[in-house]
Amino acid sequence: PNTGHGPAVCPCHSYECLALLFCKVAVVLAGCGVYDGSEIHESSAVLVHLSREGAEVYAPDVDQMHVVDHVKGQPTQEKRNVLVESARIARGNIKDLAKLDVKGLDALIIPGGFGVAKNLSTWATQGKNCIVSKEVEDILKAFHAAKKPIGLCCISPVLAAKIFPGCELTVGHDTECEKWPYAKTAETMKELGCKHVNKHVTEIHVDVKNKLVTTSAFMCNAPIHEIYDGVGKMVKEVVRLA
Amino acid sequence: PNTGHGPAVCPCHSYECLALLFCKVAVVLAGCGVYDGSEIHESSAVLVHLSREGAEVYAPDVDQMHVVDHVKGQPTQEKRNVLVESARIARGNIKDLAKLDVKGLDALIIPGGFGVAKNLSTWATQGKNCIVSKEVEDILKAFHAAKKPIGLCCISPVLAAKIFPGCELTVGHDTECEKWPYAKTAETMKELGCKHVNKHVTEIHVDVKNKLVTTSAFMCNAPIHEIYDGVGKMVKEVVRLA
Repeated sequence: PNTGHGPAVCPCHSYECLALLFCKVAVVLAGCGVYDGSEIHESSAVLVHLSREGAEVYAPDVDQMHVVDHVKGQPTQEKRNVLVESARIARGNIKDLAKLDVKGLDALIIPGGFGVAKNLSTWATQGKNCIVSKEVEDILKAFHAAKKPIGLCCISPVLAAKIFPGCELTVGHDTECEKWPYAKTAETMKELGCKHVNKHVTEIHVDVKNKLVTTSAFMCNAPIHEIYDGVGKMVKEVVRLA
Repeated sequence: PNTGHGPAVCPCHSYECLALLFCKVAVVLAGCGVYDGSEIHESSAVLVHLSREGAEVYAPDVDQMHVVDHVKGQPTQEKRNVLVESARIARGNIKDLAKLDVKGLDALIIPGGFGVAKNLSTWATQGKNCIVSKEVEDILKAFHAAKKPIGLCCISPVLAAKIFPGCELTVGHDTECEKWPYAKTAETMKELGCKHVNKHVTEIHVDVKNKLVTTSAFMCNAPIHEIYDGVGKMVKEVVRLA
Protein backbone atom coordinates (compact mmCIF):
# COMPACT_ATOMS: atom_id res chain seq x y z
CA PRO A 1 0.00 0.00 0.00
CA ASN A 2 1.25 3.45 -0.93
CA THR A 3 0.48 5.98 1.78
CA GLY A 4 0.85 8.91 -0.58
CA HIS A 5 3.78 10.54 1.16
CA GLY A 6 7.43 9.59 0.74
CA PRO A 7 9.43 7.93 3.48
CA ALA A 8 11.67 10.94 4.07
CA VAL A 9 8.73 13.07 5.19
CA CYS A 10 6.67 10.25 6.65
CA PRO A 11 5.13 11.34 9.96
CA CYS A 12 3.29 8.11 10.80
CA HIS A 13 6.02 5.43 11.03
CA SER A 14 3.42 2.84 10.10
CA TYR A 15 4.61 -0.46 8.66
CA GLU A 16 3.25 0.68 5.29
CA CYS A 17 5.46 3.74 5.42
CA LEU A 18 8.50 1.91 6.75
CA ALA A 19 8.16 -0.50 3.83
CA LEU A 20 8.66 2.46 1.52
CA LEU A 21 12.11 3.00 3.05
CA PHE A 22 13.22 -0.29 1.59
CA CYS A 23 14.04 -1.18 -1.95
CA LYS A 24 11.63 -3.66 -3.58
CA VAL A 25 13.61 -5.82 -5.97
CA ALA A 26 12.20 -8.39 -8.39
CA VAL A 27 14.40 -11.51 -8.59
CA VAL A 28 13.68 -13.58 -11.70
CA LEU A 29 14.58 -17.28 -11.53
CA ALA A 30 14.87 -19.86 -14.32
CA GLY A 31 14.57 -23.18 -12.47
CA CYS A 32 16.67 -24.82 -9.74
CA GLY A 33 20.13 -26.15 -10.54
CA VAL A 34 23.14 -24.90 -12.49
CA TYR A 35 22.78 -27.14 -15.57
CA ASP A 36 19.08 -26.65 -16.37
CA GLY A 37 17.89 -23.83 -14.10
CA SER A 38 19.10 -20.96 -11.93
CA GLU A 39 22.47 -21.45 -10.27
CA ILE A 40 21.52 -22.19 -6.66
CA HIS A 41 24.36 -20.43 -4.82
CA GLU A 42 24.11 -17.27 -6.93
CA SER A 43 20.35 -17.18 -6.30
CA SER A 44 20.83 -17.76 -2.58
CA ALA A 45 23.54 -15.07 -2.39
CA VAL A 46 21.19 -12.59 -4.11
CA LEU A 47 18.44 -13.35 -1.58
CA VAL A 48 20.79 -13.17 1.44
CA HIS A 49 22.15 -9.80 0.28
CA LEU A 50 18.61 -8.54 -0.42
CA SER A 51 17.33 -9.77 2.93
CA ARG A 52 17.54 -6.33 4.55
CA GLU A 53 15.58 -4.89 1.58
CA GLY A 54 12.51 -6.43 0.00
CA ALA A 55 12.87 -9.24 -2.53
CA GLU A 56 9.98 -10.53 -4.63
CA VAL A 57 10.77 -13.74 -6.47
CA TYR A 58 9.28 -14.48 -9.91
CA ALA A 59 9.66 -17.18 -12.56
CA PRO A 60 7.92 -17.96 -15.84
CA ASP A 61 5.21 -20.65 -15.81
CA VAL A 62 6.72 -22.62 -18.71
CA ASP A 63 8.34 -26.03 -19.26
CA GLN A 64 12.11 -26.26 -18.85
CA MET A 65 14.03 -26.81 -22.11
CA HIS A 66 15.05 -30.12 -20.53
CA VAL A 67 16.04 -31.73 -17.23
CA VAL A 68 19.71 -32.52 -16.56
CA ASP A 69 20.89 -35.26 -14.18
CA HIS A 70 23.42 -33.22 -12.18
CA VAL A 71 25.48 -36.30 -11.26
CA LYS A 72 25.93 -37.51 -14.85
CA GLY A 73 25.71 -34.09 -16.52
CA GLN A 74 23.31 -35.67 -19.04
CA PRO A 75 19.71 -34.82 -20.00
CA THR A 76 16.97 -37.17 -18.75
CA GLN A 77 13.48 -37.89 -20.10
CA GLU A 78 11.74 -35.97 -17.31
CA LYS A 79 9.64 -32.84 -17.73
CA ARG A 80 9.75 -30.04 -15.18
CA ASN A 81 8.18 -26.58 -14.94
CA VAL A 82 10.37 -23.49 -14.42
CA LEU A 83 8.03 -21.82 -11.90
CA VAL A 84 7.53 -25.01 -9.86
CA GLU A 85 11.27 -25.80 -9.68
CA SER A 86 12.21 -22.17 -8.96
CA ALA A 87 9.83 -22.35 -5.98
CA ARG A 88 12.38 -24.68 -4.33
CA ILE A 89 14.81 -21.76 -4.10
CA ALA A 90 12.02 -19.34 -3.12
CA ARG A 91 10.69 -21.70 -0.40
CA GLY A 92 7.27 -21.49 -2.06
CA ASN A 93 7.18 -17.70 -1.88
CA ILE A 94 7.12 -17.04 -5.63
CA LYS A 95 4.92 -15.43 -8.28
CA ASP A 96 4.24 -16.09 -11.94
CA LEU A 97 6.47 -13.78 -14.04
CA ALA A 98 3.37 -12.84 -16.06
CA LYS A 99 2.12 -10.98 -12.96
CA LEU A 100 5.22 -8.82 -12.54
CA ASP A 101 4.30 -5.11 -12.52
CA VAL A 102 7.30 -2.83 -12.95
CA LYS A 103 5.41 0.09 -11.36
CA GLY A 104 5.57 -1.33 -7.83
CA LEU A 105 9.21 -2.41 -8.09
CA ASP A 106 12.50 -0.50 -7.76
CA ALA A 107 14.93 -2.85 -9.49
CA LEU A 108 15.40 -6.20 -11.22
CA ILE A 109 18.01 -8.92 -10.61
CA ILE A 110 18.47 -12.10 -12.68
CA PRO A 111 20.94 -14.66 -11.26
CA GLY A 112 22.83 -16.95 -13.63
CA GLY A 113 22.84 -20.67 -14.39
CA PHE A 114 22.18 -22.47 -17.68
CA GLY A 115 18.44 -21.94 -17.13
CA VAL A 116 18.92 -18.34 -18.29
CA ALA A 117 20.34 -19.64 -21.58
CA LYS A 118 17.83 -22.50 -21.86
CA ASN A 119 14.54 -21.38 -20.30
CA LEU A 120 14.62 -17.55 -20.49
CA SER A 121 16.33 -17.47 -23.89
CA THR A 122 17.73 -19.85 -26.51
CA TRP A 123 21.35 -18.68 -25.99
CA ALA A 124 22.52 -22.23 -25.06
CA THR A 125 21.62 -23.57 -28.50
CA GLN A 126 21.70 -20.45 -30.73
CA GLY A 127 24.29 -18.11 -29.22
CA LYS A 128 24.10 -14.58 -30.60
CA ASN A 129 21.18 -15.60 -32.87
CA CYS A 130 19.14 -16.54 -29.81
CA ILE A 131 15.62 -15.44 -28.97
CA VAL A 132 14.93 -13.96 -25.55
CA SER A 133 11.49 -15.08 -24.34
CA LYS A 134 8.98 -12.26 -24.96
CA GLU A 135 7.97 -12.09 -21.29
CA VAL A 136 11.59 -11.65 -20.19
CA GLU A 137 12.39 -9.16 -22.98
CA ASP A 138 9.34 -7.02 -22.13
CA ILE A 139 10.30 -6.92 -18.46
CA LEU A 140 13.94 -6.00 -19.14
CA LYS A 141 12.82 -3.22 -21.50
CA ALA A 142 10.26 -1.94 -18.99
CA PHE A 143 12.82 -1.63 -16.15
CA HIS A 144 15.29 -0.04 -18.57
CA ALA A 145 12.72 2.47 -19.88
CA ALA A 146 11.75 3.39 -16.30
CA LYS A 147 15.46 4.00 -15.54
CA LYS A 148 15.33 1.38 -12.79
CA PRO A 149 18.56 -0.58 -12.24
CA ILE A 150 19.08 -4.12 -13.49
CA GLY A 151 21.58 -6.55 -11.89
CA LEU A 152 22.83 -9.54 -13.87
CA CYS A 153 25.44 -12.16 -13.07
CA CYS A 154 27.16 -15.19 -14.63
CA ILE A 155 25.53 -15.89 -18.02
CA SER A 156 22.52 -13.57 -17.56
CA PRO A 157 24.31 -10.46 -19.01
CA VAL A 158 23.82 -12.10 -22.44
CA LEU A 159 20.15 -11.09 -22.16
CA ALA A 160 21.19 -7.42 -21.96
CA ALA A 161 23.74 -7.88 -24.76
CA LYS A 162 20.94 -9.10 -27.01
CA ILE A 163 18.31 -6.51 -26.00
CA PHE A 164 20.40 -3.36 -25.38
CA PRO A 165 23.10 -3.25 -28.10
CA GLY A 166 25.89 -0.85 -27.20
CA CYS A 167 25.60 -1.39 -23.44
CA GLU A 168 28.60 -2.15 -21.19
CA LEU A 169 28.77 -5.54 -19.48
CA THR A 170 31.07 -8.05 -17.85
CA VAL A 171 30.94 -11.83 -17.79
CA GLY A 172 34.48 -11.92 -16.38
CA HIS A 173 37.30 -12.39 -18.87
CA ASP A 174 37.45 -12.68 -22.66
CA THR A 175 40.45 -15.03 -22.86
CA GLU A 176 39.79 -18.70 -22.19
CA CYS A 177 41.85 -20.50 -19.54
CA GLU A 178 41.25 -22.95 -16.72
CA LYS A 179 39.95 -20.13 -14.55
CA TRP A 180 37.65 -18.72 -17.28
CA PRO A 181 36.23 -21.76 -19.15
CA TYR A 182 33.36 -19.76 -20.73
CA ALA A 183 35.42 -16.77 -21.94
CA LYS A 184 34.08 -17.14 -25.50
CA THR A 185 30.79 -15.72 -24.24
CA ALA A 186 32.48 -12.31 -23.94
CA GLU A 187 33.59 -12.48 -27.58
CA THR A 188 30.07 -13.37 -28.74
CA MET A 189 28.63 -10.49 -26.73
CA LYS A 190 31.06 -8.10 -28.43
CA GLU A 191 29.79 -9.35 -31.82
CA LEU A 192 26.32 -8.22 -30.70
CA GLY A 193 27.68 -4.68 -30.34
CA CYS A 194 28.15 -4.37 -26.60
CA LYS A 195 31.31 -3.33 -24.79
CA HIS A 196 32.74 -6.14 -22.66
CA VAL A 197 34.85 -5.10 -19.66
CA ASN A 198 37.22 -7.65 -18.09
CA LYS A 199 36.69 -7.96 -14.33
CA HIS A 200 37.78 -10.31 -11.54
CA VAL A 201 35.17 -12.53 -9.90
CA THR A 202 34.85 -10.30 -6.83
CA GLU A 203 34.44 -7.16 -8.97
CA ILE A 204 31.42 -5.66 -10.73
CA HIS A 205 31.00 -3.45 -13.76
CA VAL A 206 28.48 -0.61 -13.74
CA ASP A 207 27.04 0.79 -16.98
CA VAL A 208 25.91 4.09 -15.47
CA LYS A 209 23.96 5.25 -18.52
CA ASN A 210 21.93 2.06 -18.80
CA LYS A 211 21.89 1.36 -15.04
CA LEU A 212 23.21 -2.16 -15.63
CA VAL A 213 25.28 -3.85 -12.90
CA THR A 214 27.08 -7.06 -13.86
CA THR A 215 29.47 -9.57 -12.26
CA SER A 216 30.93 -12.85 -13.51
CA ALA A 217 30.00 -15.18 -10.61
CA PHE A 218 30.39 -18.87 -11.70
CA MET A 219 31.63 -17.89 -15.17
CA CYS A 220 34.82 -18.04 -13.12
CA ASN A 221 36.23 -21.25 -11.67
CA ALA A 222 36.45 -19.69 -8.23
CA PRO A 223 35.77 -20.79 -4.66
CA ILE A 224 32.17 -20.22 -3.64
CA HIS A 225 32.90 -17.45 -1.09
CA GLU A 226 34.31 -15.30 -3.94
CA ILE A 227 31.09 -15.86 -5.91
CA TYR A 228 29.14 -14.83 -2.79
CA ASP A 229 31.22 -11.66 -2.41
CA GLY A 230 30.94 -10.65 -6.11
CA VAL A 231 27.18 -11.18 -6.10
CA GLY A 232 26.99 -9.17 -2.87
CA LYS A 233 28.72 -6.20 -4.51
CA MET A 234 26.33 -6.42 -7.46
CA VAL A 235 23.26 -6.44 -5.19
CA LYS A 236 24.58 -3.52 -3.12
CA GLU A 237 25.18 -1.40 -6.21
CA VAL A 238 21.73 -2.21 -7.64
CA VAL A 239 20.12 -1.11 -4.36
CA ARG A 240 22.27 2.06 -4.28
CA LEU A 241 21.17 2.97 -7.82
CA ALA A 242 17.48 2.30 -7.09
CA PRO B 1 47.68 -38.07 0.15
CA ASN B 2 49.22 -38.05 3.61
CA THR B 3 52.85 -36.99 3.54
CA GLY B 4 53.56 -38.51 6.92
CA HIS B 5 54.46 -35.29 8.69
CA GLY B 6 52.00 -32.81 10.18
CA PRO B 7 51.39 -29.38 8.70
CA ALA B 8 52.94 -27.55 11.65
CA VAL B 9 56.35 -29.12 11.00
CA CYS B 10 55.96 -29.45 7.25
CA PRO B 11 59.21 -28.45 5.51
CA CYS B 12 58.09 -28.99 1.93
CA HIS B 13 55.12 -26.61 1.43
CA SER B 14 53.79 -28.98 -1.24
CA TYR B 15 50.11 -28.84 -2.12
CA GLU B 16 49.68 -32.17 -0.36
CA CYS B 17 51.03 -30.67 2.83
CA LEU B 18 49.14 -27.40 2.50
CA ALA B 19 45.94 -29.43 2.14
CA LEU B 20 46.61 -30.83 5.59
CA LEU B 21 46.36 -27.31 7.01
CA PHE B 22 42.69 -27.19 6.06
CA CYS B 23 39.78 -28.91 7.65
CA LYS B 24 38.08 -31.55 5.49
CA VAL B 25 34.39 -31.54 6.28
CA ALA B 26 31.78 -33.98 4.98
CA VAL B 27 28.48 -32.23 4.16
CA VAL B 28 25.58 -34.69 3.91
CA LEU B 29 22.59 -33.59 1.80
CA ALA B 30 19.09 -35.05 1.62
CA GLY B 31 17.78 -33.73 -1.73
CA CYS B 32 17.22 -30.22 -3.05
CA GLY B 33 14.36 -28.10 -1.69
CA VAL B 34 12.96 -27.32 1.75
CA TYR B 35 9.81 -29.49 1.58
CA ASP B 36 11.26 -32.78 0.30
CA GLY B 37 15.05 -32.35 0.43
CA SER B 38 17.82 -30.25 1.95
CA GLU B 39 16.98 -26.60 2.62
CA ILE B 40 18.78 -24.80 -0.20
CA HIS B 41 19.89 -21.64 1.62
CA GLU B 42 21.15 -23.52 4.68
CA SER B 43 23.13 -25.85 2.39
CA SER B 44 24.52 -22.92 0.40
CA ALA B 45 25.46 -21.05 3.59
CA VAL B 46 27.31 -24.15 4.86
CA LEU B 47 29.28 -24.38 1.60
CA VAL B 48 30.07 -20.63 1.49
CA HIS B 49 31.33 -20.71 5.07
CA LEU B 50 33.33 -23.89 4.37
CA SER B 51 34.79 -22.44 1.17
CA ARG B 52 38.08 -21.50 2.81
CA GLU B 53 38.34 -25.06 4.19
CA GLY B 54 37.64 -28.26 2.29
CA ALA B 55 34.07 -29.45 1.84
CA GLU B 56 33.18 -32.88 0.46
CA VAL B 57 29.52 -33.27 -0.37
CA TYR B 58 27.72 -36.62 0.03
CA ALA B 59 24.16 -37.89 -0.28
CA PRO B 60 22.54 -41.33 -0.11
CA ASP B 61 21.72 -43.05 -3.42
CA VAL B 62 18.06 -43.74 -2.48
CA ASP B 63 14.62 -42.64 -3.64
CA GLN B 64 13.11 -39.58 -1.97
CA MET B 65 10.15 -40.34 0.32
CA HIS B 66 8.15 -38.24 -2.15
CA VAL B 67 8.36 -35.13 -4.35
CA VAL B 68 6.62 -31.94 -3.23
CA ASP B 69 5.42 -29.22 -5.63
CA HIS B 70 6.94 -26.20 -3.86
CA VAL B 71 4.32 -23.80 -5.30
CA LYS B 72 1.31 -25.80 -4.08
CA GLY B 73 3.02 -27.39 -1.07
CA GLN B 74 1.48 -30.72 -2.17
CA PRO B 75 3.07 -34.07 -3.08
CA THR B 76 3.17 -35.01 -6.76
CA GLN B 77 3.36 -38.43 -8.47
CA GLU B 78 7.01 -37.96 -9.52
CA LYS B 79 9.93 -40.06 -8.33
CA ARG B 80 13.33 -38.50 -7.65
CA ASN B 81 16.63 -39.78 -6.26
CA VAL B 82 18.25 -38.09 -3.24
CA LEU B 83 21.81 -38.24 -4.64
CA VAL B 84 20.79 -36.95 -8.08
CA GLU B 85 18.77 -34.02 -6.68
CA SER B 86 21.42 -33.16 -4.07
CA ALA B 87 23.89 -32.87 -6.97
CA ARG B 88 22.02 -29.68 -8.00
CA ILE B 89 23.27 -28.01 -4.80
CA ALA B 90 26.72 -29.60 -5.16
CA ARG B 91 27.03 -28.52 -8.83
CA GLY B 92 27.71 -32.16 -9.72
CA ASN B 93 30.60 -32.44 -7.27
CA ILE B 94 29.08 -35.07 -5.01
CA LYS B 95 29.73 -38.63 -3.78
CA ASP B 96 27.55 -41.54 -2.77
CA LEU B 97 27.17 -41.52 1.04
CA ALA B 98 28.03 -45.25 1.00
CA LYS B 99 31.60 -44.22 0.05
CA LEU B 100 32.12 -41.86 2.99
CA ASP B 101 35.22 -42.84 4.99
CA VAL B 102 35.39 -41.14 8.38
CA LYS B 103 39.18 -41.70 8.53
CA GLY B 104 39.99 -39.07 5.92
CA LEU B 105 37.55 -36.47 7.28
CA ASP B 106 37.75 -34.03 10.17
CA ALA B 107 34.09 -33.20 10.76
CA LEU B 108 30.50 -33.76 9.61
CA ILE B 109 27.78 -31.20 8.87
CA ILE B 110 24.14 -31.98 8.00
CA PRO B 111 22.03 -28.98 6.89
CA GLY B 112 18.27 -29.02 7.54
CA GLY B 113 15.15 -29.20 5.39
CA PHE B 114 12.32 -31.76 5.46
CA GLY B 115 14.56 -34.17 3.52
CA VAL B 116 16.36 -34.91 6.80
CA ALA B 117 13.04 -35.98 8.32
CA LYS B 118 11.84 -37.78 5.18
CA ASN B 119 14.88 -39.21 3.37
CA LEU B 120 17.53 -39.61 6.10
CA SER B 121 15.05 -40.68 8.78
CA THR B 122 11.30 -41.21 9.23
CA TRP B 123 10.93 -38.33 11.72
CA ALA B 124 8.36 -36.52 9.50
CA THR B 125 5.90 -39.38 9.79
CA GLN B 126 6.91 -41.10 13.05
CA GLY B 127 8.38 -38.39 15.28
CA LYS B 128 10.26 -39.78 18.27
CA ASN B 129 9.51 -43.36 17.14
CA CYS B 130 11.33 -42.70 13.87
CA ILE B 131 14.04 -44.81 12.31
CA VAL B 132 17.29 -43.12 11.23
CA SER B 133 18.55 -44.73 8.01
CA LYS B 134 21.29 -47.23 8.85
CA GLU B 135 23.83 -45.48 6.61
CA VAL B 136 23.26 -42.14 8.34
CA GLU B 137 23.22 -43.65 11.83
CA ASP B 138 26.51 -45.49 11.21
CA ILE B 139 28.18 -42.31 9.98
CA LEU B 140 26.96 -40.19 12.89
CA LYS B 141 28.17 -42.85 15.35
CA ALA B 142 31.54 -43.12 13.58
CA PHE B 143 32.25 -39.36 13.77
CA HIS B 144 31.08 -39.35 17.40
CA ALA B 145 33.25 -42.32 18.34
CA ALA B 146 36.27 -40.69 16.67
CA LYS B 147 35.57 -37.51 18.71
CA LYS B 148 35.22 -35.53 15.48
CA PRO B 149 32.74 -32.61 15.64
CA ILE B 150 29.26 -32.77 14.14
CA GLY B 151 27.34 -29.65 13.04
CA LEU B 152 23.56 -29.82 12.67
CA CYS B 153 20.98 -27.14 11.92
CA CYS B 154 17.24 -26.67 11.57
CA ILE B 155 15.56 -30.10 11.90
CA SER B 156 18.74 -32.19 11.62
CA PRO B 157 19.48 -32.13 15.39
CA VAL B 158 16.63 -34.68 15.74
CA LEU B 159 19.04 -37.26 14.30
CA ALA B 160 21.39 -36.68 17.24
CA ALA B 161 18.48 -36.66 19.71
CA LYS B 162 17.52 -40.13 18.48
CA ILE B 163 21.04 -41.59 18.32
CA PHE B 164 22.82 -39.93 21.28
CA PRO B 165 20.30 -39.79 24.16
CA GLY B 166 21.36 -37.34 26.85
CA CYS B 167 23.14 -34.98 24.47
CA GLU B 168 22.57 -31.19 24.45
CA LEU B 169 20.96 -29.62 21.38
CA THR B 170 19.05 -26.61 20.12
CA VAL B 171 16.38 -26.34 17.45
CA GLY B 172 15.61 -22.80 18.59
CA HIS B 173 12.75 -22.37 21.07
CA ASP B 174 10.42 -24.79 22.81
CA THR B 175 7.35 -22.55 22.94
CA GLU B 176 5.31 -22.24 19.76
CA CYS B 177 4.57 -18.79 18.34
CA GLU B 178 4.58 -17.10 14.94
CA LYS B 179 8.36 -16.83 15.10
CA TRP B 180 8.85 -20.48 16.15
CA PRO B 181 6.21 -22.52 14.28
CA TYR B 182 8.00 -25.86 14.84
CA ALA B 183 8.67 -25.43 18.59
CA LYS B 184 7.03 -28.80 19.40
CA THR B 185 10.11 -30.47 17.94
CA ALA B 186 12.06 -29.33 21.00
CA GLU B 187 9.50 -30.97 23.31
CA THR B 188 9.67 -34.24 21.38
CA MET B 189 13.47 -34.19 21.55
CA LYS B 190 13.29 -33.79 25.35
CA GLU B 191 11.05 -36.89 25.48
CA LEU B 192 13.93 -38.77 23.83
CA GLY B 193 16.12 -37.82 26.80
CA CYS B 194 18.19 -34.98 25.39
CA LYS B 195 18.61 -31.54 26.90
CA HIS B 196 17.15 -28.81 24.70
CA VAL B 197 18.66 -25.33 25.07
CA ASN B 198 16.66 -22.31 23.82
CA LYS B 199 18.70 -20.13 21.45
CA HIS B 200 18.05 -17.25 19.06
CA VAL B 201 18.40 -17.85 15.33
CA THR B 202 21.84 -16.19 15.15
CA GLU B 203 23.14 -18.22 18.13
CA ILE B 204 24.53 -21.75 18.39
CA HIS B 205 24.67 -24.31 21.17
CA VAL B 206 27.79 -26.38 21.73
CA ASP B 207 27.65 -29.75 23.51
CA VAL B 208 31.34 -29.83 24.39
CA LYS B 209 31.34 -33.43 25.64
CA ASN B 210 29.71 -34.83 22.50
CA LYS B 211 31.26 -32.25 20.13
CA LEU B 212 27.82 -31.37 18.75
CA VAL B 213 27.22 -27.86 17.37
CA THR B 214 23.60 -26.92 16.64
CA THR B 215 21.66 -23.86 15.45
CA SER B 216 17.97 -23.35 14.64
CA ALA B 217 18.21 -21.87 11.10
CA PHE B 218 14.78 -22.01 9.36
CA MET B 219 13.10 -23.55 12.42
CA CYS B 220 12.78 -19.80 13.03
CA ASN B 221 10.64 -17.52 10.89
CA ALA B 222 13.56 -15.15 10.36
CA PRO B 223 14.97 -13.15 7.47
CA ILE B 224 17.44 -15.13 5.40
CA HIS B 225 20.54 -13.12 6.40
CA GLU B 226 19.98 -14.18 10.03
CA ILE B 227 19.83 -17.83 8.90
CA TYR B 228 23.08 -17.24 6.99
CA ASP B 229 24.74 -15.74 10.08
CA GLY B 230 23.59 -18.53 12.43
CA VAL B 231 24.77 -21.24 10.04
CA GLY B 232 28.07 -19.36 9.68
CA LYS B 233 28.63 -19.46 13.45
CA MET B 234 27.86 -23.19 13.48
CA VAL B 235 30.35 -23.91 10.68
CA LYS B 236 33.06 -21.77 12.33
CA GLU B 237 32.68 -23.62 15.65
CA VAL B 238 32.74 -27.04 13.94
CA VAL B 239 35.99 -26.09 12.18
CA ARG B 240 37.46 -24.75 15.44
CA LEU B 241 36.65 -28.02 17.24
CA ALA B 242 38.09 -30.16 14.44
